[in-house]
Amino acid sequence: MSGPRPVQSDGDTGNGLAKDISSHEKPVRRGASIGSNLATLLVVGFSLALIFNSEYDPLLACIGFSALAYVITATLIPILGPDFVRVGFFGRDLGKKDRPIIPETMGAVCAVVYLVTMFFFIPFLFYKFFVTETSGSGNREHVLDTATLHKGRSLRMFPHSKLAEFLAALLSSFSMLVLGVADDLFDIRWRNKLLLPAIAVLPLIFVYYVDFGVTSVVVPPFIWKLLNPGMMLTSAVPPIVDLGVFYYLYMLAMAIFCPNAINILAGINGLEAGQSLVIAIFLLINDAMYIVPGRILGLHPPHPATEAHLLSTYFVLPLVGVTAALLKYNWYPARVFVGDTYCYFAGMVFAQVCILGHFAKTLLLFLIPQVVNFIYSAPQLFKLVDCPRHRLPKLNTETGLLEPSRVYFDVPPKGAQLLLLTTLGNLKLLDLELDPETRVVRSSSNFTVINLLLTWTGPLREDRLALLILAIQTGCCAVGLVARHTIAPAVFGRDNL
Amino acid sequence: MSGPRPVQSDGDTGNGLAKDISSHEKPVRRGASIGSNLATLLVVGFSLALIFNSEYDPLLACIGFSALAYVITATLIPILGPDFVRVGFFGRDLGKKDRPIIPETMGAVCAVVYLVTMFFFIPFLFYKFFVTETSGSGNREHVLDTATLHKGRSLRMFPHSKLAEFLAALLSSFSMLVLGVADDLFDIRWRNKLLLPAIAVLPLIFVYYVDFGVTSVVVPPFIWKLLNPGMMLTSAVPPIVDLGVFYYLYMLAMAIFCPNAINILAGINGLEAGQSLVIAIFLLINDAMYIVPGRILGLHPPHPATEAHLLSTYFVLPLVGVTAALLKYNWYPARVFVGDTYCYFAGMVFAQVCILGHFAKTLLLFLIPQVVNFIYSAPQLFKLVDCPRHRLPKLNTETGLLEPSRVYFDVPPKGAQLLLLTTLGNLKLLDLELDPETRVVRSSSNFTVINLLLTWTGPLREDRLALLILAIQTGCCAVGLVARHTIAPAVFGRDNL
Repeated sequence: MSGPRPVQSDGDTGNGLAKDISSHEKPVRRGASIGSNLATLLVVGFSLALIFNSEYDPLLACIGFSALAYVITATLIPILGPDFVRVGFFGRDLGKKDRPIIPETMGAVCAVVYLVTMFFFIPFLFYKFFVTETSGSGNREHVLDTATLHKGRSLRMFPHSKLAEFLAALLSSFSMLVLGVADDLFDIRWRNKLLLPAIAVLPLIFVYYVDFGVTSVVVPPFIWKLLNPGMMLTSAVPPIVDLGVFYYLYMLAMAIFCPNAINILAGINGLEAGQSLVIAIFLLINDAMYIVPGRILGLHPPHPATEAHLLSTYFVLPLVGVTAALLKYNWYPARVFVGDTYCYFAGMVFAQVCILGHFAKTLLLFLIPQVVNFIYSAPQLFKLVDCPRHRLPKLNTETGLLEPSRVYFDVPPKGAQLLLLTTLGNLKLLDLELDPETRVVRSSSNFTVINLLLTWTGPLREDRLALLILAIQTGCCAVGLVARHTIAPAVFGRDNL
Repeated sequence: MSGPRPVQSDGDTGNGLAKDISSHEKPVRRGASIGSNLATLLVVGFSLALIFNSEYDPLLACIGFSALAYVITATLIPILGPDFVRVGFFGRDLGKKDRPIIPETMGAVCAVVYLVTMFFFIPFLFYKFFVTETSGSGNREHVLDTATLHKGRSLRMFPHSKLAEFLAALLSSFSMLVLGVADDLFDIRWRNKLLLPAIAVLPLIFVYYVDFGVTSVVVPPFIWKLLNPGMMLTSAVPPIVDLGVFYYLYMLAMAIFCPNAINILAGINGLEAGQSLVIAIFLLINDAMYIVPGRILGLHPPHPATEAHLLSTYFVLPLVGVTAALLKYNWYPARVFVGDTYCYFAGMVFAQVCILGHFAKTLLLFLIPQVVNFIYSAPQLFKLVDCPRHRLPKLNTETGLLEPSRVYFDVPPKGAQLLLLTTLGNLKLLDLELDPETRVVRSSSNFTVINLLLTWTGPLREDRLALLILAIQTGCCAVGLVARHTIAPAVFGRDNL
């Protein structure tokens, strides 16, 4: 499913490119102006102030840690860039005239900063439980009996299940970091790596099974009536269908889909980090719609899903921090590449919050561009149509603009392939090149949404193309968010907010 | 603290060694004889039978998973070896005449197999709790109310705290895998990486704080009486001292020490994996002394620490599996190197079981060779004496035997340095070379236990040297184990077993 990662150099790693690097590599900017340093100091000060004054509100600490994660990532990326190139993590930017070699796999820096941030965040997340437990017992007993020594104390109110959820989610993210780095290093064949995210998410699924075990989904009443003929829907009998074991398969599918979906809508500067940033921000807005009215404004009792959406916020906010820092260096003209590592990691964070928060359908609404791109790419991913190694748009070196890349047919397409090509061509969903005399299909644009957009708009500069796709992503997310909170309650017969 | 890793090529990674590799690389054996295949099949069948018939006993499942981990690791290492070399994970074996290039960082394979094994083991570890919970409620309700949907069910008996401990320990191991790979790739300076294991172990320390919070250690009564003048020791007042926050610092120190200690007693074929295997086996024997009498033989009520030692077994047994497989390929003449990754990973597994099991002192008894090597190395690690890049024994190409490597003094040693050198020299703890006329110290053997042994025994072949060190390790562990269960109870005034 994860198709060719276009911007990476194939098999160049560590073989004879040393000279090439030294002549092409633009040193990543190490220093920064005084103004920027001052801003950084202000952000760090603000973050630390928030963190250490947040005692009872993990949300404040989380905002502080996320800002800190931004600063640290933005500091580390330019420092580590040359080291990454030195050990073989680099790729050629094929979208530029001189095809410069720049550091690859910078998503690993993001992921490590994210995870370390989370390690430090854990005590703040659970701080209030310690205060509750220990207040009033100021003098600790210095003498413990043997049983306590071996079995330990028990904080009765402490939400061990929440802690287990949190740790399981971090384990899943960590697994994706390892898988991503392995993929960037070894270029694992997609049939070998397709199922690996399902292994990465196992601890999380287990924790879900233990803590929630909810395998039911809300369906529109008319579907429920089809499945339960003769039964009446009442307020005590909501339109719920128990998927049983299929619910777990559905979650495994989400864990496989999210990382790979981001990884195939990729290949131009700023796109992977940009789309993830947009999705993450909309997840935060969605979370806020549950958290703000009840918990912060106190308008009505908190929504039952408030805790789940708070947890989602704690995972997504630091991702926004590290992603924003990455985007700063990955935006056109890119000084670093994000690598499969970043796509896998960000995708897994999305998958894990929707699994823990039980809102997979909402996430799918935000991933409409990725879903469309996946369906549109399917003919090439599943080899119905030839799939060249690189499918990213082609640079016209004269104009400096990107044009759709094409797949050329040595053997004229026939049968189902021809039918598919001509149908899509007639629907303007493909740019076909026909032989002027024989009307035989010679070539077609590659099956990616990026190329499709270029066939509609004409050649575009790389940053404008990225902006266009991010605008579409934002539009889809906005429509999805509105649909989630207006159409969905109407269709599902009740207001979920 | 982690000194030079001697067998690795310095900065060769990915620069112009391609030709060298192709001429030197001995292809790792891919196939295996029919007998070996049959044995493998038998082990796999036995493992699966154990795992799927273990329903109520995680220990049986753990044995099955560990055997499976051995088979998978032993299969993957030869398959992945050439890929590791291709992407730059290789080193020269300086202990051989032709200095062959062989795959490095194979500990990463062990760590990944270990962690995936653990992921699959989790449901078996907690299986009995599901049976307890769900028996008697055969027909699951298909209709759930909104509150259940959002808050989830609650398995009242489920030990969420145990699950959190398990997940936190896996997170720490995963962090060390990432740190190890980063170190093998980037060759991080030791002052930068020294404190990183302390970050890796943070989730575990947090879980310890939440679940146990025991910061007391048992001390010998005479020390206790010194600290508590005027108080009497009774059976209700055991000789316990509360270390408070220092207990956490002590655990952080263990987390830093264990990975690095294994990493500096290193450099000859089979040593890193071999010593880890010996330590792991003695940890299992120590665990068995708590588990077997009470729980398996039913001789008396189970020891209060039984659960802690069962948990330790669940972590150490799979480590034995993957380590045995690694040792098979790393033993003289090595076909792969283990890398810093392995040392860090194995060391962290040791640290995490002693933290969770509250038996840091026992582990330190098993780590006596590492402690001695660390103390003996200190003058070079802390630059009191010059520390050359490579301190591993030197191959005498004529005899094929290893001899102590030496540090040469361009400036004649003076003052404290001279005093240290001559004192150690007089104690036969160093091999000094003096100028025959001026009696000035020209050179000395390097400050590692490995070199020290060679100055005592004379030149040895690499495998005999490794065997000698492993024999010493085994002896130290055996003495430590006996001391733990005979002398310690006498000194501490009670029988801990």
